Amino acid sequence: MKLSQRALEIQASPIRKLMPYANAAKKEGVKVYHLNIGQPDIETPKVMMDAYHKFDEKVLAYGPSQGLDVYRHGLTQYYSKHNIFVNEDEIIVTTAGSEAIVFALSVVCNEGDEVIVPEPFYTNYNGFATMASIKLKPLTTYAENGFALPSSDKIEALITPTTKAILLCNPGNPTGTVYSAVEIKRIAEIAKQHNLYVISDEVYREFVYDGLRHFSIMHVPNFEENAILVDSVSKRYSACGARIGCIVSKNKELMVAVLKFAQARLCPPTVDQLAANACVQLEDSYLEGILAEYKKRRDLVFDELQKIEGCICVKPQGAFYIVAKLPIKDAEDFIIWLLKEYRVSNETVMAAPAEGFYATAGLGRNELRIAYILNEEDLTKAMHIFRTGLAEYIRTHG
Amino acid sequence: MKLSQRALEIQASPIRKLMPYANAAKKEGVKVYHLNIGQPDIETPKVMMDAYHKFDEKVLAYGPSQGLDVYRHGLTQYYSKHNIFVNEDEIIVTTAGSEAIVFALSVVCNEGDEVIVPEPFYTNYNGFATMASIKLKPLTTYAENGFALPSSDKIEALITPTTKAILLCNPGNPTGTVYSAVEIKRIAEIAKQHNLYVISDEVYREFVYDGLRHFSIMHVPNFEENAILVDSVSKRYSACGARIGCIVSKNKELMVAVLKFAQARLCPPTVDQLAANACVQLEDSYLEGILAEYKKRRDLVFDELQKIEGCICVKPQGAFYIVAKLPIKDAEDFIIWLLKEYRVSNETVMAAPAEGFYATAGLGRNELRIAYILNEEDLTKAMHIFRTGLAEYIRTHG
Repeated sequence: MKLSQRALEIQASPIRKLMPYANAAKKEGVKVYHLNIGQPDIETPKVMMDAYHKFDEKVLAYGPSQGLDVYRHGLTQYYSKHNIFVNEDEIIVTTAGSEAIVFALSVVCNEGDEVIVPEPFYTNYNGFATMASIKLKPLTTYAENGFALPSSDKIEALITPTTKAILLCNPGNPTGTVYSAVEIKRIAEIAKQHNLYVISDEVYREFVYDGLRHFSIMHVPNFEENAILVDSVSKRYSACGARIGCIVSKNKELMVAVLKFAQARLCPPTVDQLAANACVQLEDSYLEGILAEYKKRRDLVFDELQKIEGCICVKPQGAFYIVAKLPIKDAEDFIIWLLKEYRVSNETVMAAPAEGFYATAGLGRNELRIAYILNEEDLTKAMHIFRTGLAEYIRTHG
Repeated sequence: MKLSQRALEIQASPIRKLMPYANAAKKEGVKVYHLNIGQPDIETPKVMMDAYHKFDEKVLAYGPSQGLDVYRHGLTQYYSKHNIFVNEDEIIVTTAGSEAIVFALSVVCNEGDEVIVPEPFYTNYNGFATMASIKLKPLTTYAENGFALPSSDKIEALITPTTKAILLCNPGNPTGTVYSAVEIKRIAEIAKQHNLYVISDEVYREFVYDGLRHFSIMHVPNFEENAILVDSVSKRYSACGARIGCIVSKNKELMVAVLKFAQARLCPPTVDQLAANACVQLEDSYLEGILAEYKKRRDLVFDELQKIEGCICVKPQGAFYIVAKLPIKDAEDFIIWLLKEYRVSNETVMAAPAEGFYATAGLGRNELRIAYILNEEDLTKAMHIFRTGLAEYIRTHG
């Protein structure tokens, strides 16, 4: 029995693919510090857990395809705090950010159409592209300058008659790069000139450091028809298991189309929406404490990486990831070696090889992504293992 | 800004599209009996609600892409009670049956490939086909003989070089038809001869009446490589809002491919899986009571329909739907008229026009689907309004 070509070609998760090595180490009794996955260790807000505990309908019924009214209203309030002024009809709740991106790609692209995306990019965009039968066209950015966006010429050179959108992740996974207002407006300008949509994945909106303010695609003036925001509560409220996201746009025709896709799958999960809605009322102080914690972690990881001779990375200003270019040939081989061979007091560490975050063949092979999602004590130990392990790996694999 | 062709073409839900008329009636203070949607009124089991209330992790984390181990184990136990013997690796948990079908279509079909499906079929298959960029090839069945499967010749006549699968819904939505073991084996035989998969949507497995036993695609001997089961807890436990389904197959290569699709969207909702798992332990008596209730409702609706001169329908033996062919030209027009004009003691009734359940243009225009998901008292009133309304409609629109 043959499978489809796309079934054979869809990328296995580079974040999860080395898990068998980690599991084997754990079976030997080795403790593995996971810096490979963006699963925050921060506690989910109590109000969110309370919402699960308080659910008291008699029937766990379908909700509306566009999401529960109460939650869409809550989201309008949340967004207004970020100077994004939308009404309920401009929001469709999705099953996590994943579905929001697949819907966005599907309504703007026909099968085979192209979407420009700065690389390295969130690796699951590959899977979403396969699901939506579209092509990602990588716009290469570099560790050496903090993965800044290339010149407009370089971006425009990628545009073809089948290009339908530019997909941004801001703040960026895996780079941690935060695009400035000037850069976002520059992208919007290009998009407008070439009749492209900008799909902006802003799930790390709150995670910006050093006094920066996040500039959303929704903040660009006169860009209402082109701007599509995709979002999720996963990172913001440390609630990756809730699977609640949304798609936001002021383009009415587009939202009519998204609603039809949403109707086909009936609705997002009901109780999880109520739980997400409970978080809308959280005080700003909730996130301030978390941000201070992440900033401390970022500095810790960055300082450790700076101690490595030949390691290239610019201090990122957002999200909770760092991509580092290492003085080795193959980061995946290094990570497997860490998991199989290297122990400090019977502990080791895992990161995500960055090659899977690139679409251009061969790029990123000597890079890896570190997610700083552990507490300071564990992160200190993990980075110590990482640094001494790398030295040992270079010495033995030179 | 142009949208994609598929964004323009994807079907709006025929079940939900007449909702504005229902909402307008409600605004006038009219009570509307909803027989248009498969949202059971039966209470969700208490053990399921308790699982939401008892969730006490500190972090609502990502689960495994294939679903929580505990729940996949629970599902193996559930299936074994139905003489379906699978292990955990043969199950991948999905975000409702919807996602299971999209995954199944995507791994067996390339873009543009064809899947044969008996019509009338669950209307959202159209949306799933658009999402997966495949074509549904309708195999027409008829109200006159209870929507029985046509002869093998007629089925084989639809097979082309790009046909990859036959999609069945058993028991059927919207028809309520239950396929016998002989019929399922006949389909499997055809599939085997032509190297096709059979994707079997069995979310109504438990809802069979008159002493019938459900025969699953997983019961067909020597069909392991071809059989794909899609399932959901929505109807079984009256938990449509949980959005928990699964895809089951003994075809190892296929499950590897499904897992890659599952990894791309990370995981199904965590707490909802725990809630679904709580239901695995329910005694058989839980469903027996519910079945008796549905059987009573089916008989009530069928008896009322029998009183209508010129109404064609065979008593269905499964699910909780009846498709009736009426002695009118346009069932949608009739339903809109009911919602806009017809009142009995300030109450009216809504059903789903069946045309959207057909892929062949023009079919089903004088048919509608009734979901018998109200209690006996309400259903009696609703069917009285329906029957008297139809008489009045025929008299005035003749």
